Amino acid sequence: MMKKLAMGIDIGGTNTAFGLVDEDGNVVAEGKISTEKFRYYDDYKPYINTLAEAMKEVIASQPECELIGIGVGAPNACIHTGEIETPANLWKFEDPTDPRPDSIRIFKFVEDLGKHFEGVKVMITNDANAAAIGEMVFGNARGMKDFAMITLGTGLGSGIVCNGEMVYGSDGFAGEYGHIAVASRQTGRQCGCGRKGCLEAYVSATGIKRTAFELMATMTCDSELRSIPYDKFEAKMLSDAAKKNDPIALEAFERTGRVLGEALADLTAITSPEAIILFGGLANAGDFIIKPTHRYMEENQLTVFKGKVKLLMSGIQDKNVAILGGAALIWKQYLEAVIENY
Amino acid sequence: MMKKLAMGIDIGGTNTAFGLVDEDGNVVAEGKISTEKFRYYDDYKPYINTLAEAMKEVIASQPECELIGIGVGAPNACIHTGEIETPANLWKFEDPTDPRPDSIRIFKFVEDLGKHFEGVKVMITNDANAAAIGEMVFGNARGMKDFAMITLGTGLGSGIVCNGEMVYGSDGFAGEYGHIAVASRQTGRQCGCGRKGCLEAYVSATGIKRTAFELMATMTCDSELRSIPYDKFEAKMLSDAAKKNDPIALEAFERTGRVLGEALADLTAITSPEAIILFGGLANAGDFIIKPTHRYMEENQLTVFKGKVKLLMSGIQDKNVAILGGAALIWKQYLEAVIENY
Repeated sequence: MMKKLAMGIDIGGTNTAFGLVDEDGNVVAEGKISTEKFRYYDDYKPYINTLAEAMKEVIASQPECELIGIGVGAPNACIHTGEIETPANLWKFEDPTDPRPDSIRIFKFVEDLGKHFEGVKVMITNDANAAAIGEMVFGNARGMKDFAMITLGTGLGSGIVCNGEMVYGSDGFAGEYGHIAVASRQTGRQCGCGRKGCLEAYVSATGIKRTAFELMATMTCDSELRSIPYDKFEAKMLSDAAKKNDPIALEAFERTGRVLGEALADLTAITSPEAIILFGGLANAGDFIIKPTHRYMEENQLTVFKGKVKLLMSGIQDKNVAILGGAALIWKQYLEAVIENY
Repeated sequence: MMKKLAMGIDIGGTNTAFGLVDEDGNVVAEGKISTEKFRYYDDYKPYINTLAEAMKEVIASQPECELIGIGVGAPNACIHTGEIETPANLWKFEDPTDPRPDSIRIFKFVEDLGKHFEGVKVMITNDANAAAIGEMVFGNARGMKDFAMITLGTGLGSGIVCNGEMVYGSDGFAGEYGHIAVASRQTGRQCGCGRKGCLEAYVSATGIKRTAFELMATMTCDSELRSIPYDKFEAKMLSDAAKKNDPIALEAFERTGRVLGEALADLTAITSPEAIILFGGLANAGDFIIKPTHRYMEENQLTVFKGKVKLLMSGIQDKNVAILGGAALIWKQYLEAVIENY
């Protein structure tokens, strides 16, 4: 029997990475193309052609294998329609004064890529959902029916699994936990989504940086962080400073953990997950962020949930989670069909 | 063929009502016993015996019918274990200084009632979940795969359905949307759960009453409500006053609608429901509560969700929803099994 492989694709703003993934989550061959080179609206079609060619080369490198499907993780992607809808950092109009409305920027990704791979199943979902499915098929959520994945990157993404199924919602866009209110909608921090008070404005690489700068204003202590301008500041500098007991860095993690912990207690009240899995750049800060998050989550749990919910790090953090997530979309369906026909 | 009926049971603090429900949601026979008479811990066993006897009489009144199961809606009930865990208003210790810990008040309801009905399937879930399933099988959520039910009574209950399945969570207690934070956990209103800032402390019959009393302190206008003491105040008085354009009543609905609308926008971001269905005493205030809730929900939606989510009144509001909900638990399983074996 030919070895079965699923292709996972991760569409990022800089690069599009893809790889062939076996049933155990090993990436047996991979490749990438620049997304940035194709960043404007009119570049979308050439982008698809370039991506398909590059994928075919990688597939050709594995002649003994059968491709069971192509799974894609991308921002603003909808599993129901197969489209990427008005993504913030992809395929914008080259001229910012372009009179066309932003709403026409809907890209039929599944259909367009699928034309290059006839007879092959193509699926797409947003990156956080793909990460959650990757965790369910290959990572720390294996065997779990109810869990949530929180990705802490530039923003805060989430993928929620209930009864063993991804929660996509009626329109395919569910799981936007980064955009619940954790502060007043009138006076909270501005969020990239155009509103105020969203969780992601407080808890994300950008959110903790904003907190650090707020603390430089409210606290009077010395800190090495005071020499870094906002433009040059990266969240990683906070972990480095925290290791040296920098009081502003430590307080920034404490406050970020408080907001996240309270929000995870609320998520528990809504979906009662077996575990909440953290993933991404900010999650790499380890105990600095995990410990206060866990403490505030427990402090704020409704009595019935106290001590029940595991707070875990991703089990596929070190691997290319987005490629694994895309491939897991395909593997999950494939394995379920096998079980059903057994 | 004998007509098939499911028994639905609603365990309230005052009465336990039950009825035989056909496939179309008609209650063909019903009965009730006092719950209050059996309100102490040691009354639980006699309560079960009395309930079983009363149910048997009602069943005997329908000799041409087949009982396909017994479904129960009750506070703090867990579908996985079949137990009612430490309910606030049922089977408390008679002596408040009783040295036994509250945690022993776990009642094996499914097992204990089931002994009286050998071979009959018995299921239990909490009242808001039962209401949601009632809405899905008999009410306004028929055909919906993704929706949420919000019950606005003394407290705020919720039942969330994703991918056509009730979200029970890993421990069976999911759907506590009344206990998410809508104000500071440090300085928000005290909630019956022992914490501060919960949604239900603002949005519920009790919550809107608290808001009205806050407004009597902050506003200086005349209002007929100023003559009513807190102890005698009922939420219904606010609808009556609002009809006469009472400024405090109108502002209380406005503020309650704002908190609820913002919270429903957050619920949308998490689960992206096709509809959110409101049910219960406060929901009876009609447009006074629906209009501001809908306005603030839309104002606070993430762009992708704007204009998508229907805000509906319950379709079984006038019927005995809790009996229908319990029976629907059974009917849903029964009908799914029929389809699967077709």
